Amino acid sequence: MSETPVTRCAVRAGSYHDSVVLMQLQRSLATLPGVHDAGVVMATAANRDLLAASGLDAGADAGPDDLLIVVKAESEEAAGEALARVDALLRVRPGGEGGDAQDFRPRSLATALKQLPEARWVLVSVPGRYAADVADDALDQGRNVFLYSDNVPLDREVALKKKARDQGLLVLGPDCGTAVLGGMGLGFSNRTRPGRIGLIGASGTGLQAVISYLDARGFGISHAIGTGGRDLSAEVGGITAAQALDLLRRDAKTEVIVLISKPPASQVTRRLLALARAADKPVVVCFLGAPPPGDGFEEVCFVNSLEEAAVEAREALIYKRRGGMQEVPVRFAAGQRWVRGLFSGGTLALEALARLSAVLAPIFSNIPLSAEQRLPDPLRSQGHAILDLGADEFTVGRLHPMMDFDLRLRRLRQEAADPEVALLLLDLVLGDGAHADPAGELAPVVERVRADARAAGRDLDVAVLVIGTEQDPQGLNEQTETLERAGARVCRSVSALVEHTLLRMDQIGANDPEPGFPPVPLEAIQETHSVINVGIETFSASLAAQEAQVVQVDWRPPAGGNEKLASMLTRMKRRG
Amino acid sequence: MSETPVTRCAVRAGSYHDSVVLMQLQRSLATLPGVHDAGVVMATAANRDLLAASGLDAGADAGPDDLLIVVKAESEEAAGEALARVDALLRVRPGGEGGDAQDFRPRSLATALKQLPEARWVLVSVPGRYAADVADDALDQGRNVFLYSDNVPLDREVALKKKARDQGLLVLGPDCGTAVLGGMGLGFSNRTRPGRIGLIGASGTGLQAVISYLDARGFGISHAIGTGGRDLSAEVGGITAAQALDLLRRDAKTEVIVLISKPPASQVTRRLLALARAADKPVVVCFLGAPPPGDGFEEVCFVNSLEEAAVEAREALIYKRRGGMQEVPVRFAAGQRWVRGLFSGGTLALEALARLSAVLAPIFSNIPLSAEQRLPDPLRSQGHAILDLGADEFTVGRLHPMMDFDLRLRRLRQEAADPEVALLLLDLVLGDGAHADPAGELAPVVERVRADARAAGRDLDVAVLVIGTEQDPQGLNEQTETLERAGARVCRSVSALVEHTLLRMDQIGANDPEPGFPPVPLEAIQETHSVINVGIETFSASLAAQEAQVVQVDWRPPAGGNEKLASMLTRMKRRG
Repeated sequence: MSETPVTRCAVRAGSYHDSVVLMQLQRSLATLPGVHDAGVVMATAANRDLLAASGLDAGADAGPDDLLIVVKAESEEAAGEALARVDALLRVRPGGEGGDAQDFRPRSLATALKQLPEARWVLVSVPGRYAADVADDALDQGRNVFLYSDNVPLDREVALKKKARDQGLLVLGPDCGTAVLGGMGLGFSNRTRPGRIGLIGASGTGLQAVISYLDARGFGISHAIGTGGRDLSAEVGGITAAQALDLLRRDAKTEVIVLISKPPASQVTRRLLALARAADKPVVVCFLGAPPPGDGFEEVCFVNSLEEAAVEAREALIYKRRGGMQEVPVRFAAGQRWVRGLFSGGTLALEALARLSAVLAPIFSNIPLSAEQRLPDPLRSQGHAILDLGADEFTVGRLHPMMDFDLRLRRLRQEAADPEVALLLLDLVLGDGAHADPAGELAPVVERVRADARAAGRDLDVAVLVIGTEQDPQGLNEQTETLERAGARVCRSVSALVEHTLLRMDQIGANDPEPGFPPVPLEAIQETHSVINVGIETFSASLAAQEAQVVQVDWRPPAGGNEKLASMLTRMKRRG
Repeated sequence: MSETPVTRCAVRAGSYHDSVVLMQLQRSLATLPGVHDAGVVMATAANRDLLAASGLDAGADAGPDDLLIVVKAESEEAAGEALARVDALLRVRPGGEGGDAQDFRPRSLATALKQLPEARWVLVSVPGRYAADVADDALDQGRNVFLYSDNVPLDREVALKKKARDQGLLVLGPDCGTAVLGGMGLGFSNRTRPGRIGLIGASGTGLQAVISYLDARGFGISHAIGTGGRDLSAEVGGITAAQALDLLRRDAKTEVIVLISKPPASQVTRRLLALARAADKPVVVCFLGAPPPGDGFEEVCFVNSLEEAAVEAREALIYKRRGGMQEVPVRFAAGQRWVRGLFSGGTLALEALARLSAVLAPIFSNIPLSAEQRLPDPLRSQGHAILDLGADEFTVGRLHPMMDFDLRLRRLRQEAADPEVALLLLDLVLGDGAHADPAGELAPVVERVRADARAAGRDLDVAVLVIGTEQDPQGLNEQTETLERAGARVCRSVSALVEHTLLRMDQIGANDPEPGFPPVPLEAIQETHSVINVGIETFSASLAAQEAQVVQVDWRPPAGGNEKLASMLTRMKRRG
């Protein structure tokens, strides 16, 4: 007897349920006799599309705050019997049989903290729209927050993190997938041996991958601090990452620091690199998906993949790093701030642009990497600018700038006369076919524009990337010395050129001192055996399995999920 | 007596001059008594803007084919005297005093080749609009071409390269800055010691930088073969790079190969990687400015900067590489071609997308790296697709896919049912907080969809990136074994996942065999002591300084630069 399957549904209006309970309900329904498939979702438009894609289309009248239960069964009877069991199944505790050892469940964070006053951490995984309030509450109670919830508004994140920073507390997240603090895993975490490598990540699975790669190579970690994916955006400014860098700098167990993120906003990158330099421990930086500013700077090593991050962190533990560049400080005048690169080599310009894009903004070019980098008029620079003077528009009926320096020297004088320009970057390519004495032609102009700038009360920094060999007809050493005598800084790779640029930019930035904030006490990451959990209950089970003391809060949304009533209550509370 | 400077100009209509002559004319004029500055350019709009930017604005009536000479001087007399010397200065030979040892200058390539029949190479640096004709002529004479000229139309490049390939000849360029063939530098080149590292570059200064970096580390090169910047575009298809790879594969002096380029078109990358694998020598690949497909594949190592390319090439010379992956061949049906990735880890999805973007197109995602990668409907894949199923749109009111596999398993079945899908990529993250037995839930579905595909006459490849440690509660080995028993390929890094994908894609591509072309004889890069030079005369001087036999052709544009007359002549010639 093969009947056409029937699809039936039920709606529970405005009711809140733990998402583990919903997953279990769906599974239970799908395994009932005569049931082919089942779907249990909050009835948002996206979730209803997902149901439809699985052939669980239900014409039910339900809104985004309603729970929608859809059953596809072989008969009306089977569907009806399944739906009749929904309420009973919704009452099942997520922990399952015997999974819940906690006798009394506090309904509020305050009560939970009375039960476990030594808890320094509150783990929050309630739905996004409620999560910021719970986190705010935890900060008011002087606790650090692991904020697993997603869909938290950006302005709430900024407010929470600033509040935490002012109190010497941490907010990890929102959308923080993982942290391992003093060996205790919060959220999703991998078990590994104790070690001397400390991780900071704006990426949950990124941290987990590096932990796994390190473990496979026999190395453990001191701590892994997730910051949430938006922490390194311009809006949040890397508040948590900066606190984490400072913590790991002070933490005696941490000898090497690894920082993982999607490419941050350029000003955030610069700030973090300045902090990394100040850490006095090797730092491995992995910005996934965009070229890093260099291969390696003093104390900072850049890698391009998670696996490389693990490999380099291990190397940094084993080998001492060489000392870095010594720079003579320069005195830039107020208003000097732009970097201008005038390149004769197209690939050198491209690599410089790609690396500098990680740390300078706005940056413009006649060989842009993206539409917004396009320099509107190649004859006039604006902002930071990298020019390939060998590009077609500059070479019609004219020798290549590796042979004919006229165009570049004119442009050099033009840029140097701009009172907002602080650094000039040049390349100089030796060898057969090229200019017979490029340094001899460049050096007097460098000397002159620097002298003119000094006469006008400015200091002008000129760095030259020299490409060539000892055997080249121009003589590598002679060319280098000629440039250095003229006051130019000679670099031998694009990475070194960018490192030099960053050190100079830091000197400019040094005019704006950062306000001091109270340091986060080391106990925040070292004493983590007690945790309050608000939200997904399986996290309590994971913590208990790691021998933590946990109190699960029996959280319910304010006013039972009724938003109008909830906002009334909030207003009353604020007035009170 | 301080007068206001005067700016005066002269025009030489439709006349051709070597650009070295023009540079020397400008320098000579600028140093005449009473002259402040001078400009000598072909009067294109761009060049006139450049003059204006230098304060050399001239109201002269001149077109892009005209030579414009502008002089800024302290008086009318000085300007007049300077301009009166123009014609005499234009007659000066670029080589300067005694620089030209060649008694007789042939006017045509054919005559030059009679003088130096052993020349295998013709170096062409005449203006772009004439250059393709000269190169074509050289190919007709059975010679390889080093095409320095820029501004050569793309369709001419494609035609020249296909013609060369069919004859077993090379066309390096257009816009080829450098080549070092058997120790002989063409164009711009650095002097270095002989070595065992062979370079291929779509970037002139990129090659020069790597040569310099290697030299600084005590290592030389066998050959450096420039291809021109557009060779690795989809239009040209890497014709020259493929020939160069094949040459260096056969060249006994070359033990390690380095390939440098801006990121090529994805299908070109795949083809070159397949050739690189076949080379049976370590290959170091540097695609500047975009994430590479991996850290390292069998025989192929990826680096992110020119300096790293040098370091890794040296390492590859010193150390033998480990053997790579062994793959069981699969039998894809006709029409199976797409890769679909279903990830629970956002960062893992991002790294996979970034790396696969280098080799697969079109590729779509719900976390796109660029606007054109945006998947219009996240519920339905198209082309190659990488999905982050933990993104906000999939997780409202639902557990994260690292805990709840329902969404992913449904999508897995959906993708597997698509007869155009060949490969499925998944991640599986172990650890606390995650699913208690993810492989146990995933494996039966993998087994089922593979069996269903086989029943429908297709083979379906499933690869799983497993992130976790031996200590994780799920058991890394047990999870791996469960997946492997179900027929899934387990990878331990994104790089390995991409390498597996590429090997599978090669099997799909293997249905379209490449037509055979005659190999370029090794003499093309090994016997390079004789060269014909057509264009910039300083290149002859550089070749002579390297003890090459050179014949400089006294080239003039056809019909004296009169384009109408020239095209008439061409038509007549073709008819004849």
